[in-house]
Amino acid sequence: MTQLIRSWVARANDADTPFPVNNLPYGVFSTAMLEPRCGVAIGDKILDMAAAEAAGLVRMGDKAVFDAPAWNGFMALGPEAWAALRARLITLLSEGAAERAEVEPLLVDQADADLHLPFRVAEYTDFYAGKNHALNVGTMFRGPENALPPNWLHLPIGYNGRASSVVVSGTDVRRPCGQVKPRDAEEPRFQPSARFDLELEMGAIVGTASDGPISVKEADDAIFGYVLLNDWSARDIQAWEYQPLGPFQAKATATTISPWIVTKAALEPFRADAPTREKALLPHLADVGPMLYDIDLAVTLAPEGKPATTIARTNYREIYYSAAQQLAHHTTSGCPMRVGDLLGSGTISGSTKPERGSLLELSWGGKEPITLETGEQRRFLEDGDTLGLTGAAHGDGYTIGFGPCVGTIVPALDDPYAR
Amino acid sequence: MTQLIRSWVARANDADTPFPVNNLPYGVFSTAMLEPRCGVAIGDKILDMAAAEAAGLVRMGDKAVFDAPAWNGFMALGPEAWAALRARLITLLSEGAAERAEVEPLLVDQADADLHLPFRVAEYTDFYAGKNHALNVGTMFRGPENALPPNWLHLPIGYNGRASSVVVSGTDVRRPCGQVKPRDAEEPRFQPSARFDLELEMGAIVGTASDGPISVKEADDAIFGYVLLNDWSARDIQAWEYQPLGPFQAKATATTISPWIVTKAALEPFRADAPTREKALLPHLADVGPMLYDIDLAVTLAPEGKPATTIARTNYREIYYSAAQQLAHHTTSGCPMRVGDLLGSGTISGSTKPERGSLLELSWGGKEPITLETGEQRRFLEDGDTLGLTGAAHGDGYTIGFGPCVGTIVPALDDPYAR
Repeated sequence: MTQLIRSWVARANDADTPFPVNNLPYGVFSTAMLEPRCGVAIGDKILDMAAAEAAGLVRMGDKAVFDAPAWNGFMALGPEAWAALRARLITLLSEGAAERAEVEPLLVDQADADLHLPFRVAEYTDFYAGKNHALNVGTMFRGPENALPPNWLHLPIGYNGRASSVVVSGTDVRRPCGQVKPRDAEEPRFQPSARFDLELEMGAIVGTASDGPISVKEADDAIFGYVLLNDWSARDIQAWEYQPLGPFQAKATATTISPWIVTKAALEPFRADAPTREKALLPHLADVGPMLYDIDLAVTLAPEGKPATTIARTNYREIYYSAAQQLAHHTTSGCPMRVGDLLGSGTISGSTKPERGSLLELSWGGKEPITLETGEQRRFLEDGDTLGLTGAAHGDGYTIGFGPCVGTIVPALDDPYAR
Repeated sequence: MTQLIRSWVARANDADTPFPVNNLPYGVFSTAMLEPRCGVAIGDKILDMAAAEAAGLVRMGDKAVFDAPAWNGFMALGPEAWAALRARLITLLSEGAAERAEVEPLLVDQADADLHLPFRVAEYTDFYAGKNHALNVGTMFRGPENALPPNWLHLPIGYNGRASSVVVSGTDVRRPCGQVKPRDAEEPRFQPSARFDLELEMGAIVGTASDGPISVKEADDAIFGYVLLNDWSARDIQAWEYQPLGPFQAKATATTISPWIVTKAALEPFRADAPTREKALLPHLADVGPMLYDIDLAVTLAPEGKPATTIARTNYREIYYSAAQQLAHHTTSGCPMRVGDLLGSGTISGSTKPERGSLLELSWGGKEPITLETGEQRRFLEDGDTLGLTGAAHGDGYTIGFGPCVGTIVPALDDPYAR
């Protein structure tokens, strides 16, 4: 399956489409005529899955699952159903499909559709599993000798985030206010964040619930798919709040994800090994096969009304702990996991400066502003800036894309407590 | 409303009942005949709210809300509905009620009922807002000069917990496994927690959603009620994992709550001022009235098959930041809050040794074991131990109780990965 599967859908065979038959990512869309429902991206169209189900073209058991504003109901049917649907969709959408005449009227132009969160986020966990990112941040804050915390090479450090703050690409992001304490100040202040930042991440979606410890292999089987994820971060709020119990309001304003769930099945040809282990992992976290993916990632920044500059390029292979290892670790305590749990990979940075996945790293804590192609400089994000993440896995004559992961910074509220 | 409101329900006027008409807490129950549904505790009975609604005795708008295994639907109706239901229930259950003959057949014996989680926990946040607890823990880990982190007196430190791990009183708690690194060990190990502990807390339930910063007064209005909460904690797992991003698997095994939501309205007569502020709070967190409550709290420990010893007694007034202040802080970043969010107060400890709300503090990190009335000693929890929390606000001739908050420790899995 590493070559393009040709489709009868116009544009789905174009070399530059992110959505060939090989991909078939899952989203939720609405139009002027249609309430939010499940859809599958193909070329520049969306297959209306609620309509396909109503027409009997896809059938997953007794109950309708696609006339819903989330893929959770389908995910809960389990890996066999996931495989069956993918096989059926490939049949329906490939060149020469017998059902073409029935399927074609159920395609909606992507240009006419609004995209929504593709699943209900049950809970959201964010990890810190990018080694170059951890080294960069640790060097800035603790010096190069103590850059990596002692536990870092033994387990994927993570913290619970806030599911209610997850938004779909295209949602504006309001600069947060919060308590900060500048180094030269005697007392903290409440003010808009002056060091608002992005974090380039991938998100893994848990598709199978569990109720006790699971192995890395079981965890890999439980993952349904992946999205791009921007973990917006207020560095000044974080610096004041995070000791001793970790990030809280610094990470609660918003987390933007791309609108299409790219399935694990679509990414199968792009599996990649984890980086070399400096320390052997304990058996419950040990590698049992390639569980990362070769996905090219980039970050773009466009000042208001100006063209975008690509400010970073890297690859998902830079992550040290796979989503499967993160999920296995997440269950060690017996922590129950649910369908729709979202796991952020941690910021993904390569080893060189233009590969860094945050402005904190790109501008080295604000000390070395970066220069955009427009000539403007940036230490951190400014109001009106539009941030975009892109991701692509490159097959033989085709690309697996994720769609946009975009957000524009709108100014902080003048008085957050005025009513 | 500080005196007993007399009821026609037998036992609801007893001096020692936790559930007089003044209380009327909200739970979810089932019996051999009845599926899980909303109920209200009165004396030693439960009013079947689904039946009362079906009979037209209580009516909250057009849709049925009580024939559900959670109070979230009712909470979402808002504070006016909350007040209307409480007024109606007091009318129905007070001495001389005209509707007694209709209501009486809808009472179920508590002895015949199983109690379930009273609400769907949307997300769970745990705070660190007990000053004596923070001083004790800080002194143990950083010495008395640096006991309180610099931010502690300026904001309620909190971290996101794991909603999926919240269980109702009576659920067994399995000792977790996890990565630990004893001080004398070269490398970490994966093993059952040897320092498994309780934390005595109160939980506040958010009943009104919000989508941006809210004031302390608005936050107080948004709180629906309170429960007892035991934040089970694996101290050895936490010590290894918590730097730099806070507690994660150490707090994800289980969090036990009492089965009855005691409403803010029932606690109104017991409002208490916050402790004296050592540092003035910034305006967005400043006190705007008494928002703590005078609630006596206790912790009991019973070794397997043995009687319980009360190992700690304290009061909710020992908390430094009220739930309203915690909720206001939680929204500063713009973090959306949802109906059913649960906020743990942080461990509640008084200033003297017998008032400490965790074994970590009671045994001073395991160095000074406590002796139970059975003669046994405890540093941390042992398999078979049953932990209980109790809470009571004492009015003039009546008590507002919370019901039990109990969990028994069952042994760790021999091999968590055996299938």
